[in-house]
Order: sequence, then C-alpha cells, then structure tokens
Amino acid sequence: MAVAEKIKGFMEKSSWIRKMFEQGTLLKAQHGPDRVYDFSLGNPNVEPPEAVHQALEKCLREKKAALHAYMPNAGYPATRKAIAGFLTREHGLAFSEKEVVMTCGAAGALNVVLKALLNPGDELIVLSPYFVEYLFYIDNFQGVPKVVATGPDFQPDLSAIEQVLSPKTKAILINSPNNPTGKVYGASAISGLAELLTQYSRKFGQAIYLISDEPYRKIVYDQVEVPSIFQAYSESILVTSYSKDLSLPGERIGYLAVHPQAPDKGDLIEAMTFTNRILGFVNAPALMQWILPELQGLTVEVALYQKKRDLFYQALTRMGYELIKPEGAFYLFPKSPLPDDVAFVQALQEELILTVPGTGFGSPGYFRIAYCVPDATIENSLPGFEKVIKKFT
Amino acid sequence: MAVAEKIKGFMEKSSWIRKMFEQGTLLKAQHGPDRVYDFSLGNPNVEPPEAVHQALEKCLREKKAALHAYMPNAGYPATRKAIAGFLTREHGLAFSEKEVVMTCGAAGALNVVLKALLNPGDELIVLSPYFVEYLFYIDNFQGVPKVVATGPDFQPDLSAIEQVLSPKTKAILINSPNNPTGKVYGASAISGLAELLTQYSRKFGQAIYLISDEPYRKIVYDQVEVPSIFQAYSESILVTSYSKDLSLPGERIGYLAVHPQAPDKGDLIEAMTFTNRILGFVNAPALMQWILPELQGLTVEVALYQKKRDLFYQALTRMGYELIKPEGAFYLFPKSPLPDDVAFVQALQEELILTVPGTGFGSPGYFRIAYCVPDATIENSLPGFEKVIKKFT
Repeated sequence: MAVAEKIKGFMEKSSWIRKMFEQGTLLKAQHGPDRVYDFSLGNPNVEPPEAVHQALEKCLREKKAALHAYMPNAGYPATRKAIAGFLTREHGLAFSEKEVVMTCGAAGALNVVLKALLNPGDELIVLSPYFVEYLFYIDNFQGVPKVVATGPDFQPDLSAIEQVLSPKTKAILINSPNNPTGKVYGASAISGLAELLTQYSRKFGQAIYLISDEPYRKIVYDQVEVPSIFQAYSESILVTSYSKDLSLPGERIGYLAVHPQAPDKGDLIEAMTFTNRILGFVNAPALMQWILPELQGLTVEVALYQKKRDLFYQALTRMGYELIKPEGAFYLFPKSPLPDDVAFVQALQEELILTVPGTGFGSPGYFRIAYCVPDATIENSLPGFEKVIKKFT
Repeated sequence: MAVAEKIKGFMEKSSWIRKMFEQGTLLKAQHGPDRVYDFSLGNPNVEPPEAVHQALEKCLREKKAALHAYMPNAGYPATRKAIAGFLTREHGLAFSEKEVVMTCGAAGALNVVLKALLNPGDELIVLSPYFVEYLFYIDNFQGVPKVVATGPDFQPDLSAIEQVLSPKTKAILINSPNNPTGKVYGASAISGLAELLTQYSRKFGQAIYLISDEPYRKIVYDQVEVPSIFQAYSESILVTSYSKDLSLPGERIGYLAVHPQAPDKGDLIEAMTFTNRILGFVNAPALMQWILPELQGLTVEVALYQKKRDLFYQALTRMGYELIKPEGAFYLFPKSPLPDDVAFVQALQEELILTVPGTGFGSPGYFRIAYCVPDATIENSLPGFEKVIKKFT
C-alpha cells in the first residue's frame, strides 16, 4: 500500500465528511454556486483592514535588502518585539520578544507547541465541542486526547475535567471564543481552571500546561471580555494567528507566546523554536512578518459579523431552533432537531444549505453554521431552514 | 520535565552545533559582523528577480477579493496549473494540476510526503552527505533512516544502496544538486537507481518510491543538466521550492509533484493534501501562490553564484585544499585537512571564518562552506583559509 496505514484510516473515517463535501460540490455544479447556501467553512468574508495593503505596498516600495531571506527560526526580532509590546498592553504583564515565536498560523503554532511538549502517551485534555483538527494534531505526536464535554452552556465543566487529570496529563487545550459554539469561556471558568491546574500540578509534582488557542479573541460582540490566561496562570501558552482578526487565513501567519514567568520558559521557547524548524515550517512567512509591527491591535470590522450573528440568531430562534447566542467568532451551533445530526444536515442539503454535523466536533446532536458569508446568503437561506425544521417538529 | 524527552535529547545532541553558532555570534559581537566571514548558512544573498516584486505590486494593485483567504489545501488551481505546465515542458511528460500540491517550502513538502508515506518502522534510504534536517524529518514519522554513503565523487553508490534495500524500504530520498557537496547526480546514476528500484519493487511486491528534493535545480553551472527523475522512474515524487531559484526562502513557498503515471497517484495526492492540512501547514502562503503563474521558469542571476564558485574553488585548490568542483547549488565541501573536522572548523573560527563540520551532514572529515555571500567576504577570508591549512600541512 502506497499511503501509510494510519493516514489511510483517517481518510476512510472522515470519508463521510468528504462525501458531504462532494455532495455540496455537486449541488453547486447542478444549481450554480449562487443558489447553494454554503455555511460549511470558516473562511472570513470580511476583507482585511485597508492598513494591511498599505503596509504591504510600503514594504515593497521601500524594498529592504534580504526582504524575503531566512531570518532566525523564531522570527524577526522587531516583529516579535512589537507583538510583545501588544501582549504587554493586552494582558497587563511585561512580555519581551524572547517569549514570542512567529509561526505559520495558529495551526502551525499548535503543532510546534505539542511537538515540544508531548512524550508518546502523554495525555492532553480537550473540551468538546472542539475544533475538528485538534485530535489529528495530538495524534501527530502520539499524544492521547482526553475529551471532556463542556456543560450545557458550553462552559468548561471543572469537576468533569478534574476527573480526567492524571500524572500523565501534560496540558489542557482550550479554544475561546470557541469554534464551533461561539462561546467565550468566562472569567470564573478560567480562574477555576487555573486553580485546578495549580492544585494538580503540585499534587503530581509536575506542571500541567494551559494552552489557549485564541484566533477569535478580537471577534467578540456586546463588549464581552475574553479573560486573560496569562493573568490567571503562569504555566500558560497562547497560540493565535492573524487569520480572523486581520482576515489573512491564507497567508499562514500567527505566533505563540509563553507566560513571562513560566518556570521553564527558556527551555520551552528554545524547544519550540527548534520544533518550528524540524517540523518543516522553518519560519513564518517573511513578508507578513515585516508588516505586523504596523498592524498591532488592528481588527477587521467586527460590526459586520455582529450584524450577521444578530440576523441569523434571531431568525433561527424565531423558527424554533434551540441555540445559545454566540459571544464571539462567526459560528452558530444549534441543537439538531433530529437526534441524528448527520441526517439533519443531509435534510438541510436538500434545501441547498451546507452545514457541518456536530459529530465532527465531538458533539453529536448539534450542527455548525459558519456565518462569515454575505448577508444575502443568510437571508436567502432562511426559508430553507424554516422548511426543514417544520418537517421534523 | 517541561520539554518532551526526545526533543530535549535532540537539542543536547546538537548542542555542539549551537555552541559553534554561539561562538560565531560571540565573534561577531567582539569583532563586528563585517570582520567575521560567515559561510555557515545557506541564505541566498542574490536578490530575487525584479519580476517578483513587479508581480507582487501588480497583485496588490489589482486587489482581488479574498486575496488572502483560505483556498483548497492543495493550493489555487490556477497556480498548480501553471506549475503543471512548467513541469510538462521541463520533463517532457504531460502534468496536470492534479499532480501538484502547493506547500510551505520544500521542507514543508518533504514532511507532507513522509507523513503520507511512512508507517512507523518503515525504512527510508538517505545518501550521505545529506541535508542536516532529513533525519529529523524521518524521525517525525517514526521512520527508520538507512544512511548509505555516496562514492568518492559524491555520486550514488548503487551497490551500497542495493545492500540496504529490504521489504521495509518505503522510499529513497535524494538531493541533487546536492547540499552540501554541490554535486549533480548524473544521468547514469539516476537511470541505474531507477532500474534498481524497479527490480526490487517487483521482488518485494510493493513500490519503492524515489523522492527527489530539488530546490537547487536551477542553480547549476557550465550547462550541467540535472537528470529528470520523472523521465527515469514512474514511482517518483518531486519536492522543491522557490527559496533558491527566486531567492524567497523566508516566504516558505514550494510544491510537491507526483509522477503523472504513478500507479497510486490519486491516493498519494489525496493523502498529501490531507497531511498538508493535519500537520498544521493548512496551505502554502496565498500571496506567493498568486504571483507564481507569472514567474515560471524565471531564475535569479546564476552567473553571480558561478563567479563566487570559481573564485573560491580556484583559491582553495591553489592553497592545497582537496575538493570537488561543485556543479550546482552554492556550497563547497572540501576535505578537512585534519581528520577531526570539528577541530578544523574551530581552527577556522580562530581566523574569524565560520563553516560547518561535515559531521553534521553525516560525512565526518569534510566541512561545508556556503558561498552565497558577497564576493568581498570570500576575497577577504582567503588569507585566513591559507593560514589555517598551512598550520596543519
């Protein structure tokens, strides 16, 4: 067999996702792409702030020598310094460039972090619903995922987490604002988690790291605050990207940051700089690194996403869908009116509506709607959503 | 321990490299960076062709919608199609975009390929001297490297390769023009290798893949031809990047291509598109993908590198260094006048000359000089090279 058995297995197991994707492609071919309401992908439709292109144009105009050359594997010191300055303001803690490693997006950062941390068999706690790719990332390094369901409000369930903590627990990975729920983990959840990790780190005589995947940190509504993990817990690692807040997902630019007072900070950063290299990332794309110092704190127009959320949330609620109101990101995660979420998503497909079953996020019985699409797509899809829920209730 | 044991071990084992690097940094701090002759890094000093920036500026001026958005994990179809067209002309075989996957450089491509191919314990043949990172990449997927030394002229030694071929052999990885030797593997070596692999694939009842890492393909001198692996062998996979031929190493843009007649082509491409995703690369940087269709076949001014090669090769030969004349890339790989190459490299450091011991490439007794530096650096370093060889002969 040409392809490695594990990869073959992964692909077969996820073949239903591919089948749905293929059905979607087929529907678009049959009915025209504009007649199909595609809510299946988290591909931001809001354009980057104008400042991004201004910075790119300026950078090209000034044409520094070695603009596209290799730089240290951790990234340009000036870029890391600018980010450290931003983190200092954002988290009220003094960061230096030594705590920041530039990465190929948050996905790259997460792999770099896990490769540096995980021995084969080490356990990593993941909260469901979780971002689809996490289990693959953990498996890349022979880690063992311990999936813990969040509560009915999608907040971390501390007592359920406590039950899986063990001497093999290397870290817990959280994602807030959350994909797929849009939930922001609250201040009490984060401080409770920090207390729990402190207690069990002491009990087991080794640090349990808190890894926080925060690419949606800036996409929040109604002045919701995303609590700072750095304020809460010293053995914490942030991974993030500019994919959503600057709408640059295709450019693969992000970073990781380690708590300035993490006891093993030096070792960790050195190891992550090394894993960034040996995983084949080598460094984050150079041109994007050059422009970042000018773009710290900038965000796409979040109000545009909020309008979509309000429109969609209100309409679905009115129709009888059960869902929590997202506080951030650009996803809705309603309960599936049918117990079988895959069947329900297929019923939506008959109305030319593409969504993703909750099963893919470790939460069967729900489905995800990505609303980072034109308003008209949302509006025109509503009759279809209504027709399908009426069929089943 | 915070850092995974294996990573800690890797870092300790390569601590002598870091120590040398730190000595180099120290020397630059003490004497000023201009007084230190740094030949340790393969960071191209020739600027990209003007067309690269013209294409970038045009792309930004035309500002397509979703310029920086996610695209299919394999890359933009138009980019892959342009590359397929180039490969068709270059290799005299009809390629389509279906055989091309865009990657974060050749390093990203290699990891994507190895993740898709290797079961734990599968063997991969590597020829020494080899690019330093190969052993890490193979270990990333629990592959087992089988290192086979090349002959005295740095050409593949077919009978030595035949001796390690086994039912566990999944592939052989070659790199030509070679880093660190600058050697181009000749047409007879490639056709001999193809015959051997065909014979043993049949014998073991499973394909042995030929993976060719060719980022220096365009950096060749004296009209040397780099033989086409695609012409020689159908179960072959090319990995490459624009890091050297367009001087864009910091941008992490490259691709992999599978032979159009490889029997498992469909499975392989699907698997590699998937591993590109789950390794956290997700896709190759978008902006660089946009400009590639306009840049196919373009190359930096190779004559500038050739001039450096000639200058350096002639001067070192005259001094009594033993070395082959490189046919491509931008490295010299002389014999170390001392049996202990690390000691010799340290002796060069005393003359403020930074090079890398052959030990790092699996070939003790040699040392590598990267001559992608200003001509003046080469010229000014020559008295130091002469002084050190005189000391030991």
